[in-house]
Amino acid sequence: MAPDDMPRTQPLDAVDQSLVDGVLARQLRPLAKTITLIESQREDHQARARSVLEALLPHTGGAMRVGISGVPGVGKSTFIEALGLYLIEQGLRVAVLAVDPSSSITGGSILGDKTRMERLSQNTAAFIRPSPSAGSLGGVAEKTRETMLACEAAGFDVIIIETVGVGQSETAVANMSDMFCLLQLPNAGDDLQGIKKGIMELADLVVVNKADIDLAATTRAQAQLKTALHMLRPVSPNWSPPVLTLSALRMEGVAEFWQTVCEYRDTMKRTGEFETKRRRQARAWMWELIDAGLRAHFRSHPRVRADLPALTEAVEEGGTTPSAAAQRLLRYLKDAV
Amino acid sequence: MAPDDMPRTQPLDAVDQSLVDGVLARQLRPLAKTITLIESQREDHQARARSVLEALLPHTGGAMRVGISGVPGVGKSTFIEALGLYLIEQGLRVAVLAVDPSSSITGGSILGDKTRMERLSQNTAAFIRPSPSAGSLGGVAEKTRETMLACEAAGFDVIIIETVGVGQSETAVANMSDMFCLLQLPNAGDDLQGIKKGIMELADLVVVNKADIDLAATTRAQAQLKTALHMLRPVSPNWSPPVLTLSALRMEGVAEFWQTVCEYRDTMKRTGEFETKRRRQARAWMWELIDAGLRAHFRSHPRVRADLPALTEAVEEGGTTPSAAAQRLLRYLKDAV
Repeated sequence: MAPDDMPRTQPLDAVDQSLVDGVLARQLRPLAKTITLIESQREDHQARARSVLEALLPHTGGAMRVGISGVPGVGKSTFIEALGLYLIEQGLRVAVLAVDPSSSITGGSILGDKTRMERLSQNTAAFIRPSPSAGSLGGVAEKTRETMLACEAAGFDVIIIETVGVGQSETAVANMSDMFCLLQLPNAGDDLQGIKKGIMELADLVVVNKADIDLAATTRAQAQLKTALHMLRPVSPNWSPPVLTLSALRMEGVAEFWQTVCEYRDTMKRTGEFETKRRRQARAWMWELIDAGLRAHFRSHPRVRADLPALTEAVEEGGTTPSAAAQRLLRYLKDAV
Repeated sequence: MAPDDMPRTQPLDAVDQSLVDGVLARQLRPLAKTITLIESQREDHQARARSVLEALLPHTGGAMRVGISGVPGVGKSTFIEALGLYLIEQGLRVAVLAVDPSSSITGGSILGDKTRMERLSQNTAAFIRPSPSAGSLGGVAEKTRETMLACEAAGFDVIIIETVGVGQSETAVANMSDMFCLLQLPNAGDDLQGIKKGIMELADLVVVNKADIDLAATTRAQAQLKTALHMLRPVSPNWSPPVLTLSALRMEGVAEFWQTVCEYRDTMKRTGEFETKRRRQARAWMWELIDAGLRAHFRSHPRVRADLPALTEAVEEGGTTPSAAAQRLLRYLKDAV
């Protein structure tokens, strides 16, 4: 089905058409306004955001989407600023988005810590947008994904999506990135709690940051991380996630980092995995929204709402089987239709 | 809500009451007949199975549920037979269930390979049931979970659930086990493909089997696996998954294996995690069935069925956003109610 065959949710009025035109003309103010619409909880704003996004959609998809994850203190903001400045030097435009309210971007603005990414935020080739503060992770992730599309329509070459990895946020960021990078500290290997369950499996690239602090520890961490990655099945048959060392503070290793990202992108594009992954991500995103919608619809049914707490308790206590409980609840829905 | 307040799906007739009585009297024929009802695709059989299960439910939950995963060739059937015979020697009754049609139990029976678990299968304190052959993983997993409950009502002390780890089957088995054990070969560390993505994270215990073949390789594999597990956040704050070595062929290490299972069970029971995990598993199982039911209901809607293929394609190709597509499809459902 061609884009033109898809009916728009709502026709564009003059105001929204000017937003679309402004974004496509690479102007930052219309981009910021579009993102504000995307992030708004108001239903009329959401309808407008959908229309604007549909109009922008043919102009999206051109950026390299890089997810960056790491615990607070790993040096994400210093790294992202160093990377952003390096990319701008190469003639690229860079957008930085965050998924968690506690991200280094948002955290910085809340704390009034003006020095965070100060040089990057003052550069006209950069666009930095903190996480929308309201809503569930699912809601925030959706808004970030849509913001990413708007940034692509505005001609940004690289989208960096940052997460501190609260809850399931790494998975959400990995699911919207072309490449997912995990930042580690040199002492990670000594700390059992250092790496969150499941996150190593998501990484296309691991970086040991703050290599300037302790070279021996950095080398040891690199070796341990390599062993751990070696034990896991690689994400792609054509890519074994490398472990790089880097000092964002001294700007050492940033060029090598970007070179690795480009190698990854070229390999994935050559093998067709790049396109396959994006298609899979888009489909999974649609189903995530459908499932969430179905659950909300289900939970809003009066009889489900009335019986769910007691049935859940009975299931947990072994008073009824999960299938009997599920069947009974689902029957309410079918009876209603 | 007490079990007695939960209305039964269907009253028990004399035939089904005799099944319930037979299972509770620990007779294997009524147990096998009950499982046949559970596995049947016929709707009347399923309704009967639900009634029988509801009657058995107060007598379930008493067994230790041990999941065993490992690729073909790792020696699962030899190990399970050795473990089963050891447990019977200790005065315990053992049920062995499989989730995959290609499991060593089922594979053995299909191939007519009578030597597989021959000694265990002839022992009256053992009950071996291959995987139901029909249906999706979700369906098979549900039937295995219900079979597990029937075996518990029949007084089995240990339920071993086997999987060869096709697709998402390890996750399914981990979600119905109290303890999930991963069997590895001594050369696993040398083989990038040796450990499936995500599976190390599920393991409460890793066993290097066939330690008799190459002691040096076994020790190396054990060290590598320990490093890899060390890098991952442990499943419980009170349990670091150990790596044991074992020779099922020589019956070496089997007693130590069981001792570790008991230590795990005692620790989890003492900290309350045992009960919490079972409650969480039951609740997750109910929601899995609800989600599957909601999706089936959704997919059966005529307009959804008509539009879904083209919309999916449009989403994959970037012709529409996932949220616009999801919203449109969900609206059909809401309009219908």
